[in-house]
Parts: sequence; structure tokens; C-alpha cells
Amino acid sequence: MFKVHRETITLTTSKQFQLIDITKDVEEIVRKSNIKDGICIVFAPHATGAIIANENEMGLLDDIITFIKELIQPDRGWKHNRIDDNAHAHIGSAIISSERIFPVVDGRLARGTWQNIFFVEMDGPRPYRSIIVMVLGSS
Amino acid sequence: MFKVHRETITLTTSKQFQLIDITKDVEEIVRKSNIKDGICIVFAPHATGAIIANENEMGLLDDIITFIKELIQPDRGWKHNRIDDNAHAHIGSAIISSERIFPVVDGRLARGTWQNIFFVEMDGPRPYRSIIVMVLGSS
Amino acid sequence: MFKVHRETITLTTSKQFQLIDITKDVEEIVRKSNIKDGICIVFAPHATGAIIANENEMGLLDDIITFIKELIQPDRGWKHNRIDDNAHAHIGSAIISSERIFPVVDGRLARGTWQNIFFVEMDGPRPYRSIIVMVLGSS
Repeated sequence: MFKVHRETITLTTSKQFQLIDITKDVEEIVRKSNIKDGICIVFAPHATGAIIANENEMGLLDDIITFIKELIQPDRGWKHNRIDDNAHAHIGSAIISSERIFPVVDGRLARGTWQNIFFVEMDGPRPYRSIIVMVLGSS
Repeated sequence: MFKVHRETITLTTSKQFQLIDITKDVEEIVRKSNIKDGICIVFAPHATGAIIANENEMGLLDDIITFIKELIQPDRGWKHNRIDDNAHAHIGSAIISSERIFPVVDGRLARGTWQNIFFVEMDGPRPYRSIIVMVLGSS
Repeated sequence: MFKVHRETITLTTSKQFQLIDITKDVEEIVRKSNIKDGICIVFAPHATGAIIANENEMGLLDDIITFIKELIQPDRGWKHNRIDDNAHAHIGSAIISSERIFPVVDGRLARGTWQNIFFVEMDGPRPYRSIIVMVLGSS
């Protein structure tokens, strides 16, 4: 039988650029959904953040932040910064995307061993970020 | 009950690089679908365009186009340009992706306040671009 | 009636950077699913590979690899390389994304003429790469 299960993860960020591992929260939501086969969408309703999947290794997390900063250039005189100060974060969110999708197989998130799920903060610190996790499929 | 609703948006582009806001069209399709909980996929069947979600602020739209142009380098001697002249647009479409997915919650597209949906033209002007909008879920 | 169909494509890669066209395999899986309207997710459970859609033209494939290499800089002293040698591939996978989604319309993958589907190897050669193809929809 077709089923949709949805929950929202909320979090606080403490730095301008930060990667927050939400894998356990997402996996718990998939378990609670009781959906056996389907997909799980992890969606940040934010235009200055993104969602990625990759390895939770401290050096790599620094590398990813270094890479993103160099790519989107927070200190450049972007036009949007005439009315705000976060053009870089909007560009990063647009390009990297604010969602990732995963298959759900036998009731579990079918991610690779090194694919942890992260919220990418690019305009922090922020007291409130939310991530919608939706599981669709058959129970 | 599980349901799939699909419509196609068509548009014309007038510049080589252009961002076209299709948010209202997508939201109207979600409303017409009568699907209450599910997902909406916005998919461009084009290898030289992309779909992104971000804020519709004039300065930012210029920034995003400036960013993409610098990234994919339209004037570089890409190999594909031996037989065509749009390698940059193919590269941009491959990397940025020609689709974005959104949750549908209580019959509405669950996007953030600053997440408008855009078709990214990188090889215009074009008389005909189409975007498939598909809503899947339970009514 | 709602249905989920899933299969896994396996492949071998022979170079550090390589684009492998999996379009025919994905289309065959969509056909076998007997799903008429829905979506198809193409997901690589790998943190050093990605999935993209674009044209299978030899010059362009070289261009895409050149572009990705320059972007993620395999020879740079990334921090993750203190414990491994593939930080660039992790960064590429995180940013490009390890999945793409396509509509399924009238039992066929609704891709554009120039949208072939590729696995992007960024840390090869590898004896074993797998790609999960899941089709969801109504039959």
C-alpha cells in the first residue's frame, strides 16, 4: 500500500560555513515510516543552505568547506550584496541544490558506506534551520 | 490513493544566458493535481539548460549568471565546439542538473520563502524550451 | 496501482576519471518495471562517483572530464589526503550529486534527445561500482 511519511528536523548553526551531519535523524525517520520500498527526499527549504551526501571525516569536511568558499567567493562584490550580504550563499544553494534523494530498500536508507548526509550552512550562524524529510513508498 | 499528475510548461528564451521564473506555473500545476502529500519533480529534457531554486532578486539573478559563465567558460576552446558551439551549456547542464525535487505538503509546494524555481538557459535564444512537471503522491 | 521496481547495475572502471554511459541499462529496467507513469531514480551508493545526464559525444566527454578535474583539483594538498588520496573525488561526488531523477511517461524514460545517463568515475580504476535504479509509479 502506498504511503507518505514526513517529519521535519530542526537545527542551529554556529558558524558562517558549517557541515552538520543529519544521517542518524534521517535514518530514524525512515525507520519510523515503516515504508519498505521507496524513496526518501531530504529537502532544506532554505535558499542559503544545501544538502550533500559524503564521508564524515574531519579533514574532508574542512576540504569541502574550503572548496565551497573558493567556488562562491563570500568576499566578492556580488550585486545582491547591495541589499544583503549573502549572495555567495544563495549561489552555493542554487548550484549545489537544497535536496538529495535516496532509495529506501527493505525499510532502510540505501546509502553507501561513506555517504553520510549533511546540511551545508553557508550563511550562518542561524538559530533555526529546518530540513523536511519525506519518505514515499510501499509498506 | 496514489496518483500521478503531469503537465508540460513551454517557454521561449531571448538571451544566451537567462533565468526564467516558473514558480507560479509549477504551483498552479501542484494545485490542479489535487495531490495532498507527495513530491513534485521539475525536469527540463534539455542538455543545455538546468533547473535551480533560489531568490528572485534582480541583482542576485545577475550574480548567478556571472557565476555560471565564469564557471563554464563559453569562450574557451572546448573540444565539443569543433562540431557545435555550446560545450559550455552542456557542461553547465550536466553539473547543475536539469531537475529539482520539492515536497508537496497539504496540497502545496513546500518551498522556502526565497526558493523560487528557475529554468536556466545557457544556450539561448531558443524558440522552444519545455519543462515537465510531475506530481506524485496521495490525494 | 502503485508499484516499486528496483534493480542494480554493476560496472568496472578502468581509468581515474571516466564517464560510463548507462542509458540503455536504465531504459531496459524502466521497460521491465511495467510502470507507466512515475519517476526513475538513478543512484550511485558511492562517495567518490556521481551521476549526470548529457550528450554522448566524444569531444564533450573529454570536456566534462577536463572541467571536473580543474574544478576538484586531484593534485592539490587536500586535508583528506593525509589519510587517503581521493579527496578530489569526494568533493566532486558531494557537489555534482550521486543521483539524478527522470520522469517516466507512458512506460518510457522521459529524457531529452541529448540526455544520456552517465556514471562519473573520479577515483578509478575500480573493479566494482554499483548503481541502484528504482522506478516508482503506477502500472
